Amino acid sequence: MPATMDVDRLTPESLAAALDHTLLKPEATRAQVERLCDEAAEYRFACAMVNPCWTTLAAARLRGTGVPAGVVIGFPLGASLAGSKLDEAGRVLRDGAHDVDMVLNVGFLKSGMRDAVQEEIGGIARVVHDGGGILKVILETALLSDEEKKAASELSIAAGADFIKTSTGFASGGATAADIRLMRDIAGDRCAVKASGGIRTLADAMTMLRAGANRIGASASVAIVNELRGGTAAAASGY
Amino acid sequence: MPATMDVDRLTPESLAAALDHTLLKPEATRAQVERLCDEAAEYRFACAMVNPCWTTLAAARLRGTGVPAGVVIGFPLGASLAGSKLDEAGRVLRDGAHDVDMVLNVGFLKSGMRDAVQEEIGGIARVVHDGGGILKVILETALLSDEEKKAASELSIAAGADFIKTSTGFASGGATAADIRLMRDIAGDRCAVKASGGIRTLADAMTMLRAGANRIGASASVAIVNELRGGTAAAASGY
Repeated sequence: MPATMDVDRLTPESLAAALDHTLLKPEATRAQVERLCDEAAEYRFACAMVNPCWTTLAAARLRGTGVPAGVVIGFPLGASLAGSKLDEAGRVLRDGAHDVDMVLNVGFLKSGMRDAVQEEIGGIARVVHDGGGILKVILETALLSDEEKKAASELSIAAGADFIKTSTGFASGGATAADIRLMRDIAGDRCAVKASGGIRTLADAMTMLRAGANRIGASASVAIVNELRGGTAAAASGY
Repeated sequence: MPATMDVDRLTPESLAAALDHTLLKPEATRAQVERLCDEAAEYRFACAMVNPCWTTLAAARLRGTGVPAGVVIGFPLGASLAGSKLDEAGRVLRDGAHDVDMVLNVGFLKSGMRDAVQEEIGGIARVVHDGGGILKVILETALLSDEEKKAASELSIAAGADFIKTSTGFASGGATAADIRLMRDIAGDRCAVKASGGIRTLADAMTMLRAGANRIGASASVAIVNELRGGTAAAASGY
């Protein structure tokens, strides 16, 4: 599957195409979600990522732009019922989501209930794929030991994840280069890797891409692309 | 409805009966949830409050103790679909929940979509009451202006909430005495008030009860009751 990007030849366009433009704070308003979608269409981001209650709005706002709506489920704790997560996946797909980012059940993982974790992901992967979407599985790496990160990556891939993803952005920590390298090593060419949580600058984004991330989730995506545009403009003008 | 407690005559037993013994961190294990339930039964807390994925376990563990299981839904962002929250409420009730603590849709509230917020709560209130449970509505006060806190309280009460509750414990701030007084004034005898988020000591709990809280959500409930027991024992033994 996805080769790691050539980070030294990154253009504003190729960077934007690797960024999930994200707005997940609970107090986000309808107007802010609309602006997120308009920016996603303008910059050609990989998707506009919103909470489930905004799926219909985002899908309608993005219609015809070629940029899909992304929606989180079981978010951000991953501690809802497997049946609820499955139900939620079906609902957001029907409402127009393409990218579905789910949180795996961290408590179950830590309780040795790995079969239950994998079955939950497998059921959701089938629904998402049948609905024409892609599934990213959030491990919430800040809460896991390295052994747990490896196990979570393996079982997510076995269950059919299209991406394994580091973080919700709501835990004590976000993506680290070390975690991306660990997940990239396990994923190989079996699935893609998404870095998320705390990525606020172009330097942060480059670090994650160099470590092997295929996709980056960020709220600061517009600023990150504009930072590269500024640098590119400076280089083109003789600097 | 509930008169404010006589805080100066508080006993360890009456204090425990006002405490929801709570464990909502996503990394909580099966063993930790079992311990939470055992402590709830031993101390006679108002309920043991868990994430949905542990409902069946908590209900089974508490069976015959007289202490009910409490479960959060749409938690902690309140930004899932109304249909998902309603579905989740039905599932946790069938799995044995009695107390259901839901998060209202803060983004909808801030977008002027108050009818949608009230309808969502009303639908869940009917399901919860038909299932023999009680519904607490979390406003997430840290994200709201005073005007929004008042509106959220009013529409929650109109929709059938048994409690209005301050916080999830996952936002930037938790319960304050000022917010409890504001919510108590609006609730009057129409519904009860629950303080939650950041309540870690007996002094914190007393402050909330004095401000008018009928129920307190805390992870530190055992320590809080033991703090009062220590004080009571010291008083009884003459120092």
